[in-house]
Amino acid sequence: MQSASEMAERLLAGDRAALARSISWAENADPRYPGLLGSIYPRVGKAWRIGITGPPGAGKSTLTNALVAHLRERGETVGILAIDPSSPFSGGALLGDRIRMEERTADPGVYIRSMASRKSHGGLARAATDACDVMDAFGFSTILMETVGVGQSEYDVVAAADTVVVVMCPGAGDGIQAMKAGILEVADVLVVNKSDLDGADRLALDLEDAVRMRDIRRPRDLAASARWAPPVVSTSATGAGDGIDALLEAVDAHRAWLEAADLEASRRHRRVDQVRRVVGERLEEELWGPRGKREQAETLLGNSKTPYDVAEEILNSVLESRTGAGPDAGDRTSTPGDASR
Amino acid sequence: MQSASEMAERLLAGDRAALARSISWAENADPRYPGLLGSIYPRVGKAWRIGITGPPGAGKSTLTNALVAHLRERGETVGILAIDPSSPFSGGALLGDRIRMEERTADPGVYIRSMASRKSHGGLARAATDACDVMDAFGFSTILMETVGVGQSEYDVVAAADTVVVVMCPGAGDGIQAMKAGILEVADVLVVNKSDLDGADRLALDLEDAVRMRDIRRPRDLAASARWAPPVVSTSATGAGDGIDALLEAVDAHRAWLEAADLEASRRHRRVDQVRRVVGERLEEELWGPRGKREQAETLLGNSKTPYDVAEEILNSVLESRTGAGPDAGDRTSTPGDASR
Repeated sequence: MQSASEMAERLLAGDRAALARSISWAENADPRYPGLLGSIYPRVGKAWRIGITGPPGAGKSTLTNALVAHLRERGETVGILAIDPSSPFSGGALLGDRIRMEERTADPGVYIRSMASRKSHGGLARAATDACDVMDAFGFSTILMETVGVGQSEYDVVAAADTVVVVMCPGAGDGIQAMKAGILEVADVLVVNKSDLDGADRLALDLEDAVRMRDIRRPRDLAASARWAPPVVSTSATGAGDGIDALLEAVDAHRAWLEAADLEASRRHRRVDQVRRVVGERLEEELWGPRGKREQAETLLGNSKTPYDVAEEILNSVLESRTGAGPDAGDRTSTPGDASR
Repeated sequence: MQSASEMAERLLAGDRAALARSISWAENADPRYPGLLGSIYPRVGKAWRIGITGPPGAGKSTLTNALVAHLRERGETVGILAIDPSSPFSGGALLGDRIRMEERTADPGVYIRSMASRKSHGGLARAATDACDVMDAFGFSTILMETVGVGQSEYDVVAAADTVVVVMCPGAGDGIQAMKAGILEVADVLVVNKSDLDGADRLALDLEDAVRMRDIRRPRDLAASARWAPPVVSTSATGAGDGIDALLEAVDAHRAWLEAADLEASRRHRRVDQVRRVVGERLEEELWGPRGKREQAETLLGNSKTPYDVAEEILNSVLESRTGAGPDAGDRTSTPGDASR
């Protein structure tokens, strides 16, 4: 069994098998992963992380493929994390796209990794962030995270990027209007893909209007003076790859803006989010894992207590701050003197 | 300010304004809600809860509308909870459907309530379950929960129903194959809606095959002998409402099966899920609310600790079970004798 420090050494020496294993440790919440991260942490933070999201069918994978080609021409090395949705209603339909992408794996400057999205709340974004940290420490200069924008978990994943690219295409139906408000909260760069289709110009104008109309500010922890209005870029990712250079320029512009604004604050904010996810997973295990509180909950519910009453009793029994306040805490902390009260 | 017991009294007396307010308390996590639930809890458990889900465009709202009409003819009273998706990529597009549904609100035997799905993880399913409890105590004999099946949160909502109906329609594209595995885990009844469209018979046969091929068992906590194979029902919810009677018969059959198997175990299982959600929300507030640990996390991260290290320190400081085990616990619990160790 490989130790965390051995794995870190192999990873930092450029061993791709160690890269794959390290990401698996992250994905599977292997107990060795925290130690591994500790060893590689000084090397984390150089890569620029780009999140790519949008509705199914917008052409994200083709666009990602085109982006990778252009990034390679610029001399960048690229790590790609593809989140395959496996929710009951969109499960795995992207397999064909994945296979096309993996044509690139012959290139040693590119690494592609898929991650299933069927994970518990928060677990996906936690694992995706860890995977990016690993690819970052390994030395890729750019990291692309691609996900289908359908649910909160997928949103959380792209929100962990430095630059979020939201991809749309014309003809996606009347959901566009309704989408816009949400999209503008997430996007640093808006892409109208399949720009040769009817309605593409209209969509681009609509999005530009929407950007102008709203007072966009991201990340939220920056000063009010530091604003970024997401540019709208039209692309046609198939064939000649029209607009891909413009898209990369938009990403570069956002990067320059964020570095001038407060990149450190933005990244610290994201690391706090990661702390929250790790804490959440640990608590989930502690409370509801094999040695958890399920049996206690079932017994209490059987006594006609409401879920809220039962939740309070469980919280009283686990939280340091509540011991002494709980109904049964007296037994543990009272002294003979207290009993006379 | 209304007290929980006053509200409970009005609710149980059939006051519809109190019904609306009570659900708002649940939705907004009002501190009076747990007390309200305590007062009405003996009246919770009579209603049959039906979850209706499926991909966008499958015709769920029209089907729900038709179901309500048939249930009313049978003399049932119906509470409806419609989860409006407001994720960045599907936000609010169902408004038109909602308005059509609300034509029914002139009927005193029907109550319709919308709930926004833009809630934190678990919060939606928690609030939806609470809303069902309130409608149940109010006295509706059937409760319909309708949600767009796109994300984990929406899945969690329908999973809180007694009977889960998954609605599909032909022509939804090549995602169907991929969907099936997931759908069979969720569905108690499968509906092929828009059965007059091309491909409907094929879809129904495909689904029947998929049911036959798999060893379906729901709920998971029942004995292995207690199995339910979800029937496939074809409907055409517009116009004459073909198949709605057959759908209700399938729901009735599932109900009879679950009552004979172990309804209590199934419901206790769901109540434990609700305990988990309440515990999760309370912990979220305790850890990351205004008096939470964010500042501590930022400070520790600033000292180059990894998110995992910081998470451990925070857990050590809040969990009763870890005090005494944590690195700084010695200061608090040591005695002069221990120090010599």
